[in-house]
Amino acid sequence: MNTAGRRERLRAIAAERGLDAVLVTDLLNVRYLTGFTGSNGALLLRTGQPDLFGTDGRYTTQAATQVPDVEVVVERGTVAALARAAVRGGAGRIGFESHVVTVDGLAGLEEVLADAAGGTVPELTSIRRAVEQLRAVKDDDEIDALRRACAVADAALAELAAEGALRPGRTELQVGRELDARMMHLGAEGPSFETIVAAGANSAIPHHRPDSTVLRDGDFLKLDFGATVDGYHSDMTRTLVLGHAADWQREVYELVAASQAAGRAALAVGADVVAVDAAARDVIAAAGHAEHFSHGLGHGVGLEIHEAPGIGPLGAGTLTVGMAVTVEPGVYLPGHGGVRIEDTLVVTDDEPELLTLTSKELLVL
Amino acid sequence: MNTAGRRERLRAIAAERGLDAVLVTDLLNVRYLTGFTGSNGALLLRTGQPDLFGTDGRYTTQAATQVPDVEVVVERGTVAALARAAVRGGAGRIGFESHVVTVDGLAGLEEVLADAAGGTVPELTSIRRAVEQLRAVKDDDEIDALRRACAVADAALAELAAEGALRPGRTELQVGRELDARMMHLGAEGPSFETIVAAGANSAIPHHRPDSTVLRDGDFLKLDFGATVDGYHSDMTRTLVLGHAADWQREVYELVAASQAAGRAALAVGADVVAVDAAARDVIAAAGHAEHFSHGLGHGVGLEIHEAPGIGPLGAGTLTVGMAVTVEPGVYLPGHGGVRIEDTLVVTDDEPELLTLTSKELLVL
Repeated sequence: MNTAGRRERLRAIAAERGLDAVLVTDLLNVRYLTGFTGSNGALLLRTGQPDLFGTDGRYTTQAATQVPDVEVVVERGTVAALARAAVRGGAGRIGFESHVVTVDGLAGLEEVLADAAGGTVPELTSIRRAVEQLRAVKDDDEIDALRRACAVADAALAELAAEGALRPGRTELQVGRELDARMMHLGAEGPSFETIVAAGANSAIPHHRPDSTVLRDGDFLKLDFGATVDGYHSDMTRTLVLGHAADWQREVYELVAASQAAGRAALAVGADVVAVDAAARDVIAAAGHAEHFSHGLGHGVGLEIHEAPGIGPLGAGTLTVGMAVTVEPGVYLPGHGGVRIEDTLVVTDDEPELLTLTSKELLVL
Repeated sequence: MNTAGRRERLRAIAAERGLDAVLVTDLLNVRYLTGFTGSNGALLLRTGQPDLFGTDGRYTTQAATQVPDVEVVVERGTVAALARAAVRGGAGRIGFESHVVTVDGLAGLEEVLADAAGGTVPELTSIRRAVEQLRAVKDDDEIDALRRACAVADAALAELAAEGALRPGRTELQVGRELDARMMHLGAEGPSFETIVAAGANSAIPHHRPDSTVLRDGDFLKLDFGATVDGYHSDMTRTLVLGHAADWQREVYELVAASQAAGRAALAVGADVVAVDAAARDVIAAAGHAEHFSHGLGHGVGLEIHEAPGIGPLGAGTLTVGMAVTVEPGVYLPGHGGVRIEDTLVVTDDEPELLTLTSKELLVL
C-alpha cells in the first residue's frame, strides 16, 4: 500500500497552505495515510520534519507492523502527545480536521498547545475535508480492494440465486441474513451497510429495512447490498421478479435500466456531477416519472460506503480518473413496487470500469 | 419504553441550568430519549414548550411509529430546522452537546441561529455529557434488554461447547465466526463488539483479534464477546482450557476468579469506583501479579459497549442503583497465556444482579 505517496500529496497541500503540520484525527483518514486499522490512532504530518504516528499501548505491535515507515509515539492521550511534539518541533501553524474534531476536542487541544508552548502558542487552522478530497481519487491498491469487494457481492448473490434461496415463502429477513452470511463466508469482513431486502410493495420504499414480510409470487425483490474487503466497500442493487413479471413491472424495469445505462455512459473524465445525474434523471423524467426518483444518482465509494464525490442535482465538481462511484437510479411507485439498479464503477480515461458484474437483464426467478 | 420519563429527567436538568431548550444530536442519546432507531434524528427538548423531534423524509413513517408522543419535524437539514424552531419559540439559552458537535457543526449552528433571529441571537451553552450521565442508571426496560442480550451470549457459548465446536484443530477465526452466527441465530442484532477468541499464547494479549491460529491441546482459550439486543449490549469473558489444565493454568485461573469475586462483592450502592477496582486489583497484586493486570476493572454497558461509569484506578464517582457494569480482571503472562473472567451485572440495593450466567468454574473441554 503506497501510504507514503498519499502522505506526500497531503504534505504538498499543507505546504501550499503555509502549514507546518497537520493533525489528522479522523480514523479512516489516518488509515488511508498510514495503513493503521486499530481503533485509536492519529497522524502528525509535518512539512519540514519527519511525521509521527500516535497510538496507545494496545497497539504497539500492530503499529510497528502496519506503519513501519513512520515513527510511532505510544501514549495514552494520543492527540495531546502529538500536539506537544508539534510544539517541540517549533510548529507555528497547525492544520486540524474541523469537520471531525468536536467543540470539546478543540478546547482540549488549545489547552495542550498553550501549556506546551513556552512563548507563542501555535495557531490552529482548519484543513476541513482535505484528506477526503484526496480519497475521492483511488490508487491501484484501492481499486483492487474495491474490485474484490464487488466480486464477493456478485458471488454471494449468484450462489443464493443458484441455491433457490430467493423464492416465495421465505422472508426478507431470511434472505438478508443469508446474503450477509454468504458474503462473510466468501471473505468479507462484513456487509458494507445494513443489507436491504424489499419484496412486493416494500420495494417502493427506497431504504426499506428487511422484516418478516414473506416473498410472494409476482413480487419485485429489490436487493441493495455490498461487502467490505480490506476496509473497502462495494455497493450494488439488483431488482428481480419472482415467478412471473407483469407488463407494468417490465416497463418500470426497462425504464430504470435505460436510465442507469445513460448514467453509466455519462461517467467521463471532466463530466460535471450535476450533468451525470441529469443524464440518468432525464430518461426517467421523459417517461413522466420524475417525482418517483426521489434521491441522487450516486456517490463515491471507498473506505466509507458514502464518500466524495456526490452525484446528484445539488452536487458540485467534475469527475477525474480513479474516482469510484455508484450509479443507482430508481423508480418507486408507492403501494405497488419499485426498481433500483445500481453498479459500482471506476472512472477511467476510456469507458468506466464496471466492478459489479452481476447481469442487469431482468431476472425472473 | 418510558422515554417520556427520561425526557422529564433531562428537562429538570435543563431548567436547573437556566436553559430554555436543549438540542440533543448524539444519535444514541436521541434514541434513549425518544426510542428512534434511524440514522438521522435530533431532539429539541424544551422547558416551556412542547418538544420537537426532527428527522428527514426517509424516516417519516418510522418516526411516527417510534416517536408517537413528540411532534415530528421532517426536514433535510434536521438540526438547522430544530434550531430555527427554537428561535421561533423565543429560546434565549440553548444547550448543545459539545462532546459530539464538531467545530464545523457549531459554526453552522451559530450561523443558522444568527440568520433566524430577528434581534438577539440565542446563546449556545454546553450540556456536555448530561444525557450520558442519565444513561448510566438503567430503568427496568433497559435492564430487561440487557438481561436478554446476556442470555443470548450465554446460550451461544453453551451451544458451541455442547456441539464440540471448541476443540483442538479449529482456528480462532472459525470459533469467532460460529459464536457470532450463533448469537445472530438466537436473536442478536449483531455482536456487541468484535468477538475476541485468543488461544494459547495469544490469550496473554488482552484484546487479541482472532486469526488463523489453530487451537491446540493444553491451550488456554479466552472468549470475550457479547450480543446486541434491542440496541443493548452484553459483555462476557470466559477462559477455558482445552484437554488438560496444567498446574500453572489452574493457579492463574483461581487467582483471577478470586479477584473477580472480590470485584463483584464490592459492587454496592455508594461504593467509589476506585475502591471497587482496588478490591479486585489488590487480590492480584498480593499474588505478585500487579503488572500483569494492565487495564481497568470494568465499565458501564448499555446502548454503548463502553459507557459511564468507568471502574478503574483513574475513575471518579460512586455506584448507584440501576448501574449496569462489567467486572473483568485479568492476568496476562506474555508468551505463555492469560486469563480474564468477566460478567455484566446490575447494581441493586442488595447483592448485584448477575446478568451473564455462564459458570465461572474452570472449564476443561
